[in-house]
Amino acid sequence: MDRPPLDLASLFLGPKAENAEVLERLLLEALRDHVFWRRNFHPEDGFEISELDKRRPGYEQSQSLLAQELLSLLGELKGGVPFFSPRYIGHMNADLTLASLVGWFATLLYNPNNVAVEGSPVTTRLELEAAAQLAVMVGYPESAWGHLTSGGTIANFEAFWVARNVKYLPVALSGAADELGLGDLELGRADGSRAPIGRLGLWELLNTPPGAALDAADGLLAAATDRQRASEVLARHSLARVGHQEYGRRLALEFGDPLPPAVVLVPSTAHYSWQKICRALGIGSDQLRYVPVDRRFRIDVEALERLLAELAASRTPVLAAVAVVGTTEESAVDPVDRMLAARQRAGREHGLAFALHADAAWGGYAISITRAADGSRRDLAAARAEAAPHAWPSPEVWRALIAVEGTDSVTIDPHKFGFVPYPAGAVLFRDLRVRELVATDAPYVFHDESPASLAAIGPYILEGSKPGAAAAAVWLSHRVLPLDGEGHGRLIGATARGALALHRRLAAGDFGPFRVVTLPEPDLNIVCFGVRHPRFAALEEANAFVAAVHARMSIAPGRPPREVDFVVTRTLLREADYGAAPLPLLELLGWSADDYRRAGGVAVLRCTVMNPFVAEPRGRTDFVEAFAAALREVFDEVLAVSPGTAA
Amino acid sequence: MDRPPLDLASLFLGPKAENAEVLERLLLEALRDHVFWRRNFHPEDGFEISELDKRRPGYEQSQSLLAQELLSLLGELKGGVPFFSPRYIGHMNADLTLASLVGWFATLLYNPNNVAVEGSPVTTRLELEAAAQLAVMVGYPESAWGHLTSGGTIANFEAFWVARNVKYLPVALSGAADELGLGDLELGRADGSRAPIGRLGLWELLNTPPGAALDAADGLLAAATDRQRASEVLARHSLARVGHQEYGRRLALEFGDPLPPAVVLVPSTAHYSWQKICRALGIGSDQLRYVPVDRRFRIDVEALERLLAELAASRTPVLAAVAVVGTTEESAVDPVDRMLAARQRAGREHGLAFALHADAAWGGYAISITRAADGSRRDLAAARAEAAPHAWPSPEVWRALIAVEGTDSVTIDPHKFGFVPYPAGAVLFRDLRVRELVATDAPYVFHDESPASLAAIGPYILEGSKPGAAAAAVWLSHRVLPLDGEGHGRLIGATARGALALHRRLAAGDFGPFRVVTLPEPDLNIVCFGVRHPRFAALEEANAFVAAVHARMSIAPGRPPREVDFVVTRTLLREADYGAAPLPLLELLGWSADDYRRAGGVAVLRCTVMNPFVAEPRGRTDFVEAFAAALREVFDEVLAVSPGTAA
Repeated sequence: MDRPPLDLASLFLGPKAENAEVLERLLLEALRDHVFWRRNFHPEDGFEISELDKRRPGYEQSQSLLAQELLSLLGELKGGVPFFSPRYIGHMNADLTLASLVGWFATLLYNPNNVAVEGSPVTTRLELEAAAQLAVMVGYPESAWGHLTSGGTIANFEAFWVARNVKYLPVALSGAADELGLGDLELGRADGSRAPIGRLGLWELLNTPPGAALDAADGLLAAATDRQRASEVLARHSLARVGHQEYGRRLALEFGDPLPPAVVLVPSTAHYSWQKICRALGIGSDQLRYVPVDRRFRIDVEALERLLAELAASRTPVLAAVAVVGTTEESAVDPVDRMLAARQRAGREHGLAFALHADAAWGGYAISITRAADGSRRDLAAARAEAAPHAWPSPEVWRALIAVEGTDSVTIDPHKFGFVPYPAGAVLFRDLRVRELVATDAPYVFHDESPASLAAIGPYILEGSKPGAAAAAVWLSHRVLPLDGEGHGRLIGATARGALALHRRLAAGDFGPFRVVTLPEPDLNIVCFGVRHPRFAALEEANAFVAAVHARMSIAPGRPPREVDFVVTRTLLREADYGAAPLPLLELLGWSADDYRRAGGVAVLRCTVMNPFVAEPRGRTDFVEAFAAALREVFDEVLAVSPGTAA
Repeated sequence: MDRPPLDLASLFLGPKAENAEVLERLLLEALRDHVFWRRNFHPEDGFEISELDKRRPGYEQSQSLLAQELLSLLGELKGGVPFFSPRYIGHMNADLTLASLVGWFATLLYNPNNVAVEGSPVTTRLELEAAAQLAVMVGYPESAWGHLTSGGTIANFEAFWVARNVKYLPVALSGAADELGLGDLELGRADGSRAPIGRLGLWELLNTPPGAALDAADGLLAAATDRQRASEVLARHSLARVGHQEYGRRLALEFGDPLPPAVVLVPSTAHYSWQKICRALGIGSDQLRYVPVDRRFRIDVEALERLLAELAASRTPVLAAVAVVGTTEESAVDPVDRMLAARQRAGREHGLAFALHADAAWGGYAISITRAADGSRRDLAAARAEAAPHAWPSPEVWRALIAVEGTDSVTIDPHKFGFVPYPAGAVLFRDLRVRELVATDAPYVFHDESPASLAAIGPYILEGSKPGAAAAAVWLSHRVLPLDGEGHGRLIGATARGALALHRRLAAGDFGPFRVVTLPEPDLNIVCFGVRHPRFAALEEANAFVAAVHARMSIAPGRPPREVDFVVTRTLLREADYGAAPLPLLELLGWSADDYRRAGGVAVLRCTVMNPFVAEPRGRTDFVEAFAAALREVFDEVLAVSPGTAA
């Protein structure tokens, strides 16, 4: 390549708005370009608003009001959070790429609605392209499909909505085949064999691999004499039409035993939204089975395998399992490769089949480090060069990131590790055909787009109207910062470098009489640590102290940003969620398992490093050292000012 | 008032970007204000990006790439849709208020995340204020609660998610009361009487008015000796936890007869998203009962009452009913006042109780016309002055708009009739207490916000991360254009005036040999019309002709905006959805009910008037006349160029 290596300094407005001139120029370019687009549309109409109008009292009043209110909004916004600064190491927030800012703004002026091509002839295409870029990064086949969402929750929701429809598809197929006299239709099974659908019981039907279910649906429609009617019959037998309550009754009636409700397997570190999703879908949060995590906060695959064997023994169907690629609290990456192997084994040995969804809302963009500029996979060694002197990523994380290509669906949020503005989530499906299972028709919106056109988004998604500006922002950002190791991967590497430097510094200590104990080295870029002081008599006191430190190191209404030196956040590793995983941390902090149980959990401070300059300061401040110093100062302050807080 | 009347010319960038100077000035103000905010945050850190950095090849390469890609994006965007023009009368799109544009942009630079106050100390408050402004406009009590969503679909989804939880709350209460030995707990009933919960059967429990269910939940917790435990027991009995399938089994077990699945009542004009929502929630789209509409496309209240009586007779619970305030196809406003009365009667006479949700995604902002500047309700006469010479709104619509205050929840989309950018929907609940039924806890996000704090949004909504920029845009727009008859109402009035002028012109004819037949005068601002030509031998031909006209009058990939004089859209009034409602239209067009049935529906062209200058042109073009002329021209062209299209 004769292209110079990417300079991360060029990507953002910058901690001191160093690139302000560039941003202003590009924004003005976009604004004026839009202004003259308007002026060129039917110039013969003349002007609706004349210069004379602008001198009318009603006009002036309204304009003055706007200017005044804007100034007061600008004043208020200054109470916001300085996400752009290397001193912000709190939540998953950072500076935004210049590309995403100008892409958003330029498109905001046009305000396209990506629910239908008719209202977004340009940006619907950009959305599909941006999703396809993510699918290529992940390694999904060409038959994949994806789109943007308002965020990770809706993306995960949609993945499960689809997974449920695929799960119950064989049951609907069985009913439809029976009605259509097509009981000989063959269905692929979890152990690789095939069988006529008419001969399979409910347990077998509910253990059809996702791809086999979709193949059988194609088979049914192909075999039917009247395709239209077959499609209608199939719909009539679908869970989506019938609803959960009545479906349960029918299953009991038709198959004798309706089987227990299908369960959902998630690591105990899974995002809180999974509960919400299972409740909203009518699955019920009781059906969530939490699989323990190991001491690196990754799902315990042996525990998963034991659970799968138990579920098979009790004939409890598995709706789907979730692999988390970057937990929100520790940035832990589940061993997706080993989960895929576990699923395969469960199919062979127990006849179990289910969808595997990767919740890579947080960590998905890290897959870019596995790609060379030409799109091929890189060596781990090449990726590691980026994070020197740290040995990052670990071989386990590397294998997991690559293995995401084997999942059925994946959530990746551009508005997290993609460095673009809210709202921009994304969901990808490995098999385009799932779209049809959730398709809706609207005669006034989807004229010629439904159901065959590949250009359509609206008929196949949970949301309706959606911002084309988000699509343009993600798309432009991907153009400037390609999803490979020499583009976006470099940025990811810089954040990991920052997190590891921070981790190393905190682990090195020098906080006496306080003791700082970190969790193990993070898989990606979140550093969590606990604090102990000789004066703390109980874990509850330590937890309250952590809360007070966090309060002092965060922005809140009434506490202006300038009074805060560094911004961190905190979390409580709850015994109910985490089980034994934090025991090593507790031991190092000098607390017992009993303390842990009694206190309900152990509070830790949490630092998400997204700013590329944390470990590579180019200005006057060494942020890693400055953070250690600030932390020490706040420790003393909190202990001195309000010993009650720590009691 | 000594304030001059609002000048609508001051609100938008304008069809010829007449207000470009103002917008540019305000945007620069916002940008520079933000730039210097960054520069003032810890100036001692110095600069991370130096002027020298900017001369490095990697920096220059990346910046050139950005500028180049932006230019190409700007070029592409010009293929977008001219929503800003009075010549755009297609979908629900229009110019955006200047306030919303600058509010969005100013906040975009800060990128706050309204999922938690910690990431949005300012904009979470703005979101709650904006929602409260809508609640005040609607007339909800002070105990109401609301927030923004990514759009109307998610807002409607959330309303139903909540309605389902409230519906099954008495069942959970009954189980919990039994377990806690509190069977004497009193429950209010649909006929106004009260009874100990332990003595009520499933049918009675499922017919508890929403407010009474929430009161009883308070009662249970107050009566319990251990509130925490009572709350946990109640949760264990909830549908959200148990899930639909298992709940159905338990109901059968505990109550003998599990009753048929609860149904959802919607007018047959309801938005396509209701199907999607019922499918996704696991309710099943079979449970949707479509109530016929009358010849004004408003729900037929007599039919609704008959259906309610039938449902009571077959002991089928009603999960919720939906009133549509502004159908997406005709802008018809359901008689909310009469629906409320029907519900009351059904409670008195049949013991039925259910939530009434207003889907005012489209028409909600029209409620502003009912308000005087001091917040009180105006007279109809005062509102009508705005729409002179047209007699708008009709007394029926007026009563319906006011009656929305009696519903349990309402969806109102700022990104539709609020003239702000995507994405911005909103959902409001009359009773704050419903929040607790869908609350989720996330230890790393909602520190001190859950569950009591009124300042929190995140724990109570379906979505997760959400743009604070949307909140600021809506908030600033409401500040400049208050939600009353002298503010936003004037804008709504101007759009109605435009629609009525267009309707009058089209109805006046003068298209010979073509015949244009309009639907009745719209309730708000959407005009639909059919077309007949002597050469059309069958309705199918007319429908194809309408499709061809629409294709000629819309923007699509490859057809640049400048080649289109006016942009309209179309829809198919399907027999399956609309039943007898379009029969008068068909008759006037010269088609029979048989033709209608055979063709599957009648296609109409659809014009949404949102531009305030359509009926009050200040420039050189009379848009109403120009549209009639353009239409005539396209008619001839389509007939001449491709007689095949019309065959």
